[in-house]
Amino acid sequence: MSDYQTFTADDARLFALTHGDTFRDSDQLEAEEFGDGNLNLVFRVKNQQGRSLIVKQALPYARCVGESWPLTIDRARIEAEVLLRHGRICPQHTVQVLHYDAALAAIVMEDLGQWDILRGALVAGKQFPKLASQMAHYLAHTLFHTSDFVLNGLQKKTEVARFLNPELCLITEDLFFTDPYCNHERNSIHQAILPQARELWHDEALQAEVARLKADFLSKPQALLHGDVHSGSIFVSAEQCKVIDAEFGFYGPVGFDVGSLLGNLLLSYAGQFGLQEDAAAREQQQRYLLGQIETLWQDFASEFSQLMQTQTKESSFANSRYQSFYLQQVLADSIGYAGCELIRRTVGLAHVADLEQIRNEQLRARCERFALALGRQLILQRHGLTTIQQLLTLVQHLPIPA
Amino acid sequence: MSDYQTFTADDARLFALTHGDTFRDSDQLEAEEFGDGNLNLVFRVKNQQGRSLIVKQALPYARCVGESWPLTIDRARIEAEVLLRHGRICPQHTVQVLHYDAALAAIVMEDLGQWDILRGALVAGKQFPKLASQMAHYLAHTLFHTSDFVLNGLQKKTEVARFLNPELCLITEDLFFTDPYCNHERNSIHQAILPQARELWHDEALQAEVARLKADFLSKPQALLHGDVHSGSIFVSAEQCKVIDAEFGFYGPVGFDVGSLLGNLLLSYAGQFGLQEDAAAREQQQRYLLGQIETLWQDFASEFSQLMQTQTKESSFANSRYQSFYLQQVLADSIGYAGCELIRRTVGLAHVADLEQIRNEQLRARCERFALALGRQLILQRHGLTTIQQLLTLVQHLPIPA
Repeated sequence: MSDYQTFTADDARLFALTHGDTFRDSDQLEAEEFGDGNLNLVFRVKNQQGRSLIVKQALPYARCVGESWPLTIDRARIEAEVLLRHGRICPQHTVQVLHYDAALAAIVMEDLGQWDILRGALVAGKQFPKLASQMAHYLAHTLFHTSDFVLNGLQKKTEVARFLNPELCLITEDLFFTDPYCNHERNSIHQAILPQARELWHDEALQAEVARLKADFLSKPQALLHGDVHSGSIFVSAEQCKVIDAEFGFYGPVGFDVGSLLGNLLLSYAGQFGLQEDAAAREQQQRYLLGQIETLWQDFASEFSQLMQTQTKESSFANSRYQSFYLQQVLADSIGYAGCELIRRTVGLAHVADLEQIRNEQLRARCERFALALGRQLILQRHGLTTIQQLLTLVQHLPIPA
Repeated sequence: MSDYQTFTADDARLFALTHGDTFRDSDQLEAEEFGDGNLNLVFRVKNQQGRSLIVKQALPYARCVGESWPLTIDRARIEAEVLLRHGRICPQHTVQVLHYDAALAAIVMEDLGQWDILRGALVAGKQFPKLASQMAHYLAHTLFHTSDFVLNGLQKKTEVARFLNPELCLITEDLFFTDPYCNHERNSIHQAILPQARELWHDEALQAEVARLKADFLSKPQALLHGDVHSGSIFVSAEQCKVIDAEFGFYGPVGFDVGSLLGNLLLSYAGQFGLQEDAAAREQQQRYLLGQIETLWQDFASEFSQLMQTQTKESSFANSRYQSFYLQQVLADSIGYAGCELIRRTVGLAHVADLEQIRNEQLRARCERFALALGRQLILQRHGLTTIQQLLTLVQHLPIPA
């Protein structure tokens, strides 16, 4: 197709019609823009028989800010290529990409709209028993098969260069690792927790550990990450889940993807103190979440170990002691990045419904303080937490702030 | 200039004449190929007034093996660009590149032939009091100024992609980290130490630690390394030293460059037991070498700390606790890579004169066993050796094998 131009609904309709075999020429197609994300145009295109596709187009700026924040449309290539690679490795849990057009920075993909977005569903108190084990499978397989265990140096370096993704990484570098730990204008802090936020700006021990995690984010290209595995990037049903929105993909530390999801489950746990007034129901939901966290790590560790034992191609890494060490550092990294996610979603630019939808301000502030205190402990104690049970104990014994 | 063609002495003479202003058209230039390296053609071009330049051309194969081992001539670009970058940062200790021609894969550079190559000079028992402090300066400055302390994410990622250098890295991956720890046909092992070499092939604890160091070599792009800082890559005089041969340059762990030099000083130390029969002279030379090792680390740590404190551009890394941690991990990495260098130079493909020039076979075997035992201890104990004094104590107390 031709040069870049911003899609109208008509353009999206034509794009979906001409790519893939979902629709016929005779179909009466409707297209509607419904993107609630921060960066892109997202259209749902459907016919009268109820079949539908998603057309996603990157804008040459960040949609949430406007044209004053230019942002490369190459992120559509990153997204399409990460999803295609992850989709080859784990099709059951990766949204299917049907077509990608480089010039238009546009992707046609399957529509998962009949499922729930995980965040909203968890806020509504829903439970998905298979979520953690399925996400563990997705993470173990996509991360292992793009790592040094499988790729040789030449293949790996080629892939690293293909997914440098500097502009999108910079957003994470700033929002995730920098802003929350200083008085930055991008931060968004509810008045009631300003004292706790200020403590972050002067906590040198914490800042030193966050610097280590940031240094690894910059310089530890272990595997091709999704790069943004939060509960808004996961579609879920009773039986299934699939990951979307991979424009932050790049080669980084394995623990960043695992920890992002871990952190989002913990945010949901923290929010329950304010979202669910009924104590029994709250305890039940929190038990569910802790169970999912346990399953997420246990299944991830088990599948990743199995893959290391049976499918490692680089002979140096077939050593079982090395593999144990590797998994231990992934756990420590994951706990650290989970801690960062808890903190940045509480005081940084991008908040989450798990906390924002708590109507009572005092109650919300208590939950936010809990999230900050938990995040801090995870970051500081991550090297001492050598099993997932130790992490669960820490979560359960952390006092709920007044 | 035109397409690639292998230089004759005449070509090299013309190339040196037309690039840079060292020579005049009227000069009677002589050119002589004298490359004793493993990979390239190296010519010295000189006029009758005694002025001279070096012309180095990459061959499309590894010279030491022949055309059956093809090797990218892009390594000439890597070498020229690393030397130019390091030369801008630390001109006093980097060989000066006068011209680089991409098509011909050829470099014109200053001739340091009036100085000694460090390895041979150390084998001959010479001492250079300023060596360690000058090399510490070179390493601290070149590594700091190409790191995340100074470059932002975009700059750093661009540089990482520019210096991926997969083919040359693969040589190190194999020769440094893989071959010595298995019964590989590329290994070269003197009969007398075959039992000790065999132990390496079955030492799973050691192999696990070497795997960690190899994983970092593959996936820890902290700074633009020289990539091959052994004593054959350093020209030295009583007053000065300069580094050459940067075709192995890439973004890797800071400790790899520091550890390579550390390992080469320790190889010289090990060789003294066999090279120097006079006990007093040997002790004196070994004291010199240990003093240089101490100075190398102390000065490197001091200069790198100073740079971190005063010239860090990335605010997250201005934290003093983080900086202390960073330096501690560089020390541990350096000790580990020094250990690998000791081992691979003793049983791997590429041996060193420090050991090979010991005429008495039994004596050489004792020195080789010392090198292997020391290398093993450094790799296994590196996280416990938190000061350079602890390392020196370990070296001095290691028994000299029978």
